[in-house]
Amino acid sequence: MVDIVHRVGIKAPISKVYAALATIDGLAGSWTRETTGSSKVGGNIGFVFHMPTGEEIGGFEMEVLELATDQKVRWRVKNGPEEWIGTDIEFSLSRQDDYTIVTFSHRKWREEVEFMAHCSTKWATFLLSLRDLVETGEGKPSPHDLPISNWH
Amino acid sequence: MVDIVHRVGIKAPISKVYAALATIDGLAGSWTRETTGSSKVGGNIGFVFHMPTGEEIGGFEMEVLELATDQKVRWRVKNGPEEWIGTDIEFSLSRQDDYTIVTFSHRKWREEVEFMAHCSTKWATFLLSLRDLVETGEGKPSPHDLPISNWH
Repeated sequence: MVDIVHRVGIKAPISKVYAALATIDGLAGSWTRETTGSSKVGGNIGFVFHMPTGEEIGGFEMEVLELATDQKVRWRVKNGPEEWIGTDIEFSLSRQDDYTIVTFSHRKWREEVEFMAHCSTKWATFLLSLRDLVETGEGKPSPHDLPISNWH
Repeated sequence: MVDIVHRVGIKAPISKVYAALATIDGLAGSWTRETTGSSKVGGNIGFVFHMPTGEEIGGFEMEVLELATDQKVRWRVKNGPEEWIGTDIEFSLSRQDDYTIVTFSHRKWREEVEFMAHCSTKWATFLLSLRDLVETGEGKPSPHDLPISNWH
């Protein structure tokens, strides 16, 4: 099994970063505007992605496995691209210097496919979108996310 | 052993992307302005990073293991942070649609440390800097690289 890991620092209180990750509104402001469902433990969150032209790219459905206030958000992928199903996504929060540090992992990929490399880079841009949302009030969620390639 | 992987697409001929990765000038335009040495096979390239305020952050020395024109650039880390020494960095190029695809890997990390997560995110930003350099003539090399955290 192979994993994607990332780390970003956000100049904001840990509670504000946690709120952005643990609520539908926060996820809609950083990852994709089309975020729906329940962000409580045991709930399912749906994420759908579009091109700026309106064409649908695809989506994911996550089950919320764990919420630890100001510490951790953990999901399992229930539906989406075949490579994503059964993988685990985790955001861990801590404080260092004047930053809230987000340590991110997307684990249990079965193979290191080209799509995994794409998702690794794309996750970095979404974590920086989360940073921008929390620090400035404005993220870059889909359909206005930063394009990185022909796979968008 | 654990690996970092990324994938970006660049709207430019493969030869232009290769030139940016296989020359000191190209690396100085995308990764760090302070890039020196020989980018030929068997040569050593030195990379030094600074804060915008001028303070030195650190650096790496890579041996060029492989150059395959318009296909691949591969380095081994000879000096730098302890976690980097002996790791391998590879850029593989291919064409898809109207893009040159860069598939990137930084392999043979001995442990999945927090610094690895930082480097993973930072690599994504440098690959997007490479994209900007090749597409627009202007990258974001150190000391003007995009800050991502307290570790810069």
